[in-house]
Amino acid sequence: MKNSDNRHGNGEVCSPEWGKGAHENGHGSDSDGVVLGLDGGTTSTVCVCIPLLSFSDHNLPNTVPILARAVAGCSNHNSVGESASKDTLEQVMAEALCKSGSTWSSVRAVCLGVSGVNHPKDQERILNWLRDIFPSHVKLYVHNDALAALASGTMGKLHGCVLIAGTGCICYGFSKDGREARAAGAGPVLGDWGSGYGIAAQALTAVVRAHDGRGPQTTLTHSILKVLGLSSPDELIGWTYADQSWARIAALVPEVVSCAEAGDQIANKILVDAVQELALSVKAVAQRLCLCGEDGNSSFPIVMVGGVLEANKSWDIGKEVINCIHERYPGAYPIRPTVEPAVGAALLACNFLMKESEGHCNS
Amino acid sequence: MKNSDNRHGNGEVCSPEWGKGAHENGHGSDSDGVVLGLDGGTTSTVCVCIPLLSFSDHNLPNTVPILARAVAGCSNHNSVGESASKDTLEQVMAEALCKSGSTWSSVRAVCLGVSGVNHPKDQERILNWLRDIFPSHVKLYVHNDALAALASGTMGKLHGCVLIAGTGCICYGFSKDGREARAAGAGPVLGDWGSGYGIAAQALTAVVRAHDGRGPQTTLTHSILKVLGLSSPDELIGWTYADQSWARIAALVPEVVSCAEAGDQIANKILVDAVQELALSVKAVAQRLCLCGEDGNSSFPIVMVGGVLEANKSWDIGKEVINCIHERYPGAYPIRPTVEPAVGAALLACNFLMKESEGHCNS
Repeated sequence: MKNSDNRHGNGEVCSPEWGKGAHENGHGSDSDGVVLGLDGGTTSTVCVCIPLLSFSDHNLPNTVPILARAVAGCSNHNSVGESASKDTLEQVMAEALCKSGSTWSSVRAVCLGVSGVNHPKDQERILNWLRDIFPSHVKLYVHNDALAALASGTMGKLHGCVLIAGTGCICYGFSKDGREARAAGAGPVLGDWGSGYGIAAQALTAVVRAHDGRGPQTTLTHSILKVLGLSSPDELIGWTYADQSWARIAALVPEVVSCAEAGDQIANKILVDAVQELALSVKAVAQRLCLCGEDGNSSFPIVMVGGVLEANKSWDIGKEVINCIHERYPGAYPIRPTVEPAVGAALLACNFLMKESEGHCNS
Repeated sequence: MKNSDNRHGNGEVCSPEWGKGAHENGHGSDSDGVVLGLDGGTTSTVCVCIPLLSFSDHNLPNTVPILARAVAGCSNHNSVGESASKDTLEQVMAEALCKSGSTWSSVRAVCLGVSGVNHPKDQERILNWLRDIFPSHVKLYVHNDALAALASGTMGKLHGCVLIAGTGCICYGFSKDGREARAAGAGPVLGDWGSGYGIAAQALTAVVRAHDGRGPQTTLTHSILKVLGLSSPDELIGWTYADQSWARIAALVPEVVSCAEAGDQIANKILVDAVQELALSVKAVAQRLCLCGEDGNSSFPIVMVGGVLEANKSWDIGKEVINCIHERYPGAYPIRPTVEPAVGAALLACNFLMKESEGHCNS
């Protein structure tokens, strides 16, 4: 994969098997070429190859033909380092392209939605080595994975905001005139209290506080100790610092929801606070981008993504977040995506390419 | 150091030079023998060797003769692993003993105050390998480093509580009838908001929230970016996760105090909240141990330790914590230790040994 010149031709780097797909399944690259969409998260990286689609904000695609899909491990450079991140991204793109039966020369545009891209410097660094891989005519776009998630809900339309609340949380928005804004997404040290990690850490804290006399008793104690197989809250300290992976702690969210549903006031307060935090992120983005229009009543979509926002039993965090947002922005409407974020990234590639062709890219 | 039998004799393991001190400085081990006190923190480990002292709760030592002092690196098994922790503790004790000109056979008691000892299992593990090192007649005591800090303020008397607030925070108390209790000290994931790390993390969070529209503007932004040499709050995310050492983040506390002193309301609120948290820890321990007596007005000492509690300019966190505790416990009085925690550990060794001799150890 190091000699990138090889793949600027007509597909010589594909193994003989890789070239077959195009003819066997009837997809292959059409004359308009293909685009790659990539979603690089903290646990896995997904790349899809789709044909170049033409659409407008008023005529969005209903379905998206997926020519090929490839999956790899984590590509967040903050987690695995830059070299491993680069290798993973390069390999997963090569695999998707070859599976689709398309050639490197048929690629028109590539959009990477990568978690950990928080600063123009991150974007620039990834763009630099993408330019070594792809021929100069290929359009390259690098964004935070939140933008890909937004597009997966809006089917490529760049308007509204996405609220992601899984292990971490972030709100990201894009206005009709091309401005963007984000709120939260700064990780647990920097106060992402609406995230799964944030909710679970608050619950663990409540157990410790109840145990040492700083806080009221809570059923979270029994519930969390039981699921972790521990006999005393004292053991929570050792459990917590034995492995500080954020996902491991966030996995305790269902216990918090169960306790709240059973009437525990401490668990309930943790969820109410998380709802406020998540709604605040959306309100901050909506206000900065004026998503509700001049009159304050225009409609805009909120794409809802991640385990924390999925319907629970009686305590539905996602629904409560929307209710909270509606108090200020009655025109906001939730969307649950029907395609995955990598497809959103591919639709973004199409959208950006169309806008560049129209000369409106920077409008 | 692996052949522990060598040092159960009369000092043969000391190099020839090590034996000289006893005669040159006139200290050496007297007929009553010596005790070792050790303070094992997250950044360094200190061991002192003192003569066995006899004192009572009503006749405490005013000064402590230090025969020798040795310093080593971190010995917290959560940070460096058990094997490295053990090696460090063993080496620093051997050095202190040899520097004092005493022999292994003159050691009467050893008290280790080690951070990271949160559970009887931790205590038992360390006691097990201490028993391999020392002859069976040597009394061995292993406690959390907080108990050594308490004794450093009370000069060995086991009564009252200690509040430690540096990078981390913990409150630890000991009642006259031998019961003990702690609050906080569970690390940043589990809600030690009164710690230096907690204060600084709240300040960083406030900067991020002001930047993305979730919170009010604060002078913390300019102050923190300047001291870190960053140009935008966006860069704080990369800075924070590049190295998550708790001490590195806690080092920002002086910026928070400066901003609060200059009138910043956000910084002020962070310090007020930290004061409440620290005072709550003390109140929880005092209540569980009934340190204020049956009438609620008895006096008890609060040993104050750590950078967060040291006198600041106009905003004095330690003073505010005491004021807050006085609202409920007017008899509580602060003590600033004049000896280091390792000396506190050595005084504990003497105290425990006396109590065992009196047959009151478990009373």
